[in-house]
Amino acid sequence: MMRMSNNPNLTTLRSRLSEIHDLNKIGWVLSWDQRTMMAPGGAGVRAEQIATINRIAHEKFTSDEIGALLDSLSDVEATEPADSDAAALIRRTRYDYARERRVPGELRVAMSRAQALANGAWVQARRNNDYAGFKPSLAEILDLKRAYADAVRDPGQSRYDALLDDYEHGITTAEVTEIFTTVRDGLADLIAQVHEHPDRVDNGALHGDFPADQQATLCRSVLEPLGFNARAWRLDPTVHPFASNASTQDIRITTRYEPHILGPAFFGSLHEFGHGLYEHQIDPALERSPLCRGTSLGWHESQSRMWENLVGRSRAFIHWVHPRLKRVFRKHFTRYDAEALYRAANRVQPSLIRIEADEVTYTLHIVIRFELEQELVTGTLSLDDLPAAWNDRMRRYLGVEVPSDAQGVLQDVHWSQGYFGYFPTYSLGSILSSQLWVAIQRDLPDIERQIGKGEFAPLRAWLGEHIHRHGRKFTPRELLQRTLGVDRIDVAPYLSYLHTKFGELYA
Amino acid sequence: MMRMSNNPNLTTLRSRLSEIHDLNKIGWVLSWDQRTMMAPGGAGVRAEQIATINRIAHEKFTSDEIGALLDSLSDVEATEPADSDAAALIRRTRYDYARERRVPGELRVAMSRAQALANGAWVQARRNNDYAGFKPSLAEILDLKRAYADAVRDPGQSRYDALLDDYEHGITTAEVTEIFTTVRDGLADLIAQVHEHPDRVDNGALHGDFPADQQATLCRSVLEPLGFNARAWRLDPTVHPFASNASTQDIRITTRYEPHILGPAFFGSLHEFGHGLYEHQIDPALERSPLCRGTSLGWHESQSRMWENLVGRSRAFIHWVHPRLKRVFRKHFTRYDAEALYRAANRVQPSLIRIEADEVTYTLHIVIRFELEQELVTGTLSLDDLPAAWNDRMRRYLGVEVPSDAQGVLQDVHWSQGYFGYFPTYSLGSILSSQLWVAIQRDLPDIERQIGKGEFAPLRAWLGEHIHRHGRKFTPRELLQRTLGVDRIDVAPYLSYLHTKFGELYA
Repeated sequence: MMRMSNNPNLTTLRSRLSEIHDLNKIGWVLSWDQRTMMAPGGAGVRAEQIATINRIAHEKFTSDEIGALLDSLSDVEATEPADSDAAALIRRTRYDYARERRVPGELRVAMSRAQALANGAWVQARRNNDYAGFKPSLAEILDLKRAYADAVRDPGQSRYDALLDDYEHGITTAEVTEIFTTVRDGLADLIAQVHEHPDRVDNGALHGDFPADQQATLCRSVLEPLGFNARAWRLDPTVHPFASNASTQDIRITTRYEPHILGPAFFGSLHEFGHGLYEHQIDPALERSPLCRGTSLGWHESQSRMWENLVGRSRAFIHWVHPRLKRVFRKHFTRYDAEALYRAANRVQPSLIRIEADEVTYTLHIVIRFELEQELVTGTLSLDDLPAAWNDRMRRYLGVEVPSDAQGVLQDVHWSQGYFGYFPTYSLGSILSSQLWVAIQRDLPDIERQIGKGEFAPLRAWLGEHIHRHGRKFTPRELLQRTLGVDRIDVAPYLSYLHTKFGELYA
Repeated sequence: MMRMSNNPNLTTLRSRLSEIHDLNKIGWVLSWDQRTMMAPGGAGVRAEQIATINRIAHEKFTSDEIGALLDSLSDVEATEPADSDAAALIRRTRYDYARERRVPGELRVAMSRAQALANGAWVQARRNNDYAGFKPSLAEILDLKRAYADAVRDPGQSRYDALLDDYEHGITTAEVTEIFTTVRDGLADLIAQVHEHPDRVDNGALHGDFPADQQATLCRSVLEPLGFNARAWRLDPTVHPFASNASTQDIRITTRYEPHILGPAFFGSLHEFGHGLYEHQIDPALERSPLCRGTSLGWHESQSRMWENLVGRSRAFIHWVHPRLKRVFRKHFTRYDAEALYRAANRVQPSLIRIEADEVTYTLHIVIRFELEQELVTGTLSLDDLPAAWNDRMRRYLGVEVPSDAQGVLQDVHWSQGYFGYFPTYSLGSILSSQLWVAIQRDLPDIERQIGKGEFAPLRAWLGEHIHRHGRKFTPRELLQRTLGVDRIDVAPYLSYLHTKFGELYA
């Protein structure tokens, strides 16, 4: 139970919020089920069920009672320590309440229903390379998302800023633009260097014959020493991987097994593990409260990208994991040793698919989404012109030709789920993870050696102590201040990390 | 959409009931997930989530608004045809409403929470043969169920009659006692005949080496021609098999794979298929309404026991299915031909486990539950004395010694879920299935030949037309009247079927 004062209004607020949190988490379970388990025939009614849950959650949360409780608790908020559970609960809920009150109930329900239905439409469109078949769903989602942005935005705030705020509270389009520009400029020389030696690094170690069931065995055997355990975690296949959970002790990650490439499932499940661990290590006192969630998507991605890249693609980790890979795919990993695997895992090559992109070109994928999203939301780009705009930018920024919409604009699930303003958080998370890693190396000077020996408990403990346990008690910027003593995301450690690592590989 | 008049109050009622139905079905999904997918660490929060859903459903359903809507619709109920969707919706809801209004909200929530928690306790107790560890959960469930019976029962109605009514509306303990006594007396000579030739029928065909994944392949390959398809169905492993669904196009059946006996998964999945088909074939117009459910558990069991026994254990079916079994387990089913399999599938042997019992002794298992339940509910039997009472009755009625509580009183999940009054419906369903089969043979004189050729569409269509499509529009007794033109369950066809079939086998 949450540690807090005995104020009866606080108890009542806590209890109302627990009920609402239950409804939200139930929505997550329904959505997880839809994307991993549900027979496709169930999609129509499932959309109604999710809409019902969301409508009731919205009604209960935006009720006058919640407002009155919050008003009555101003004193408690002021007298309890600012970092106490009680003060944080009141403070964060006050913000959420004001924002959700601006959303008409019918709009919330319409978004929920449209997103649930668009998921199946997207799966089918991607399978059949049928952008035209998906366009009506996307148009509906986009219209609803515009209406949503108009409903919630502050006077003078742009639509896109309002959307960004849902995923990374407190950041603006201007700040993100500045960050991305610095990254792009800072990586230009590195990318040029790679272009001079495109074949210096061979990725054969990740290509071969990898049956799905053996990949699943492998992923489990690697994730378990990291902290995955059957008592509190699941790993399931899906079309577009994601992490979800029903509670801190019921973490659900998903992945996708490509029969001839090991990377997507292997690094993908490390990525989702990072998300899962964040929620798994939240203070149990926050369970069933709105604070029981990572504070932002950027912070979430800092965790997933950290486990995927800073840990998973490090030389120390690769040398630790190689014998485990060899246990499952003996012949292949006898041919390819640990160093070959390390190089394959870090090959830089401009490519079509974001989730398979290397660390150096990853941000370019995000910049494309970031630009296109802004144009779609403001309306300067029409959905008719979207595929061409996508393909054009892929050519200009990454130098790749997009052979089909399935491998182009249809590759990701997110827009079908209304996630406009979400993509930037992937790169923000990558950048933040490097910033955090500096602090981790300072506090755990032995970290590299530990990873090389498969000792992940110290890293888990550090992340739990400094980040995870707080859940959503602090805003992204407050957490930055608290963890690193700074006010802004800093690009420098990220650029330095990439230059050092890939400078060596592509020297 | 439901076909009904344009009365605005009816539209409002329909919409409120759709929302409540969504909540109930979401509860089913959460419970299915808990029993097939959820990591055990999630149990505590899951119990709260299910309790939250049930509390909200209860509050919404027992609201004064529903009562006022029902009152305002008396005229519509009287003027619409009695078998119309509209009249049925109002009529059935009026009954449910009056009953649920008698249940205090806190009691509904307490039952829901206790049942969700008891599920895990039961799984663990069964695994560890630890009745003492399960007793506190069972005591809580039983107390709550007594309180529930006291809350809902009519003046003069016994507690057990009130509980029975939830599962088989309109039947009484007296009527069930009479039916079971007739069955028991009617089978005494057959059981004596079997006792004289205990080894006349060999069951070797069902014993061997059957890896779980191959059993799963087999079950699918057999269920598909019956009507199971991946667009609308799932089949998953669980501890205690059950059927559930999220909608008519999202049917979920479960089974249990025993590595050395084929019967449980094979006949078990036919059984659950019968449940699934009932819900799958409900008129789509009833979707998202309280009429979208089988009318009673007895009628449900008539469907599951029909597919398991009258179809699945018939000579025609076994001869059709044998080559399919051989395709998966070639060596085994080369050794055992179709006739050997038919005999094995119909071996009569008093045994420990109800769900593995043969057709002849099955009712004795039910009678034991029926008697013990009445004693537990009235309080004449204490939970301390329950295992001894169980073992004693197994000895007296079935002549078997119970070696452990895991194979005794702990074998079934139902009591942990508060299902007191449910067990009798298994035998009522078996009896009813024989009664229905007489009508099926009259309308489909070719049925046996069709089954022998794997043509199940005519049977599916008959069941859909006469039973399934109506969902819960009619009470159990109304459906009996409508389908068979009679008012009572008749034991004669059941006894005649068993005597003919097993008389031949044990002559």
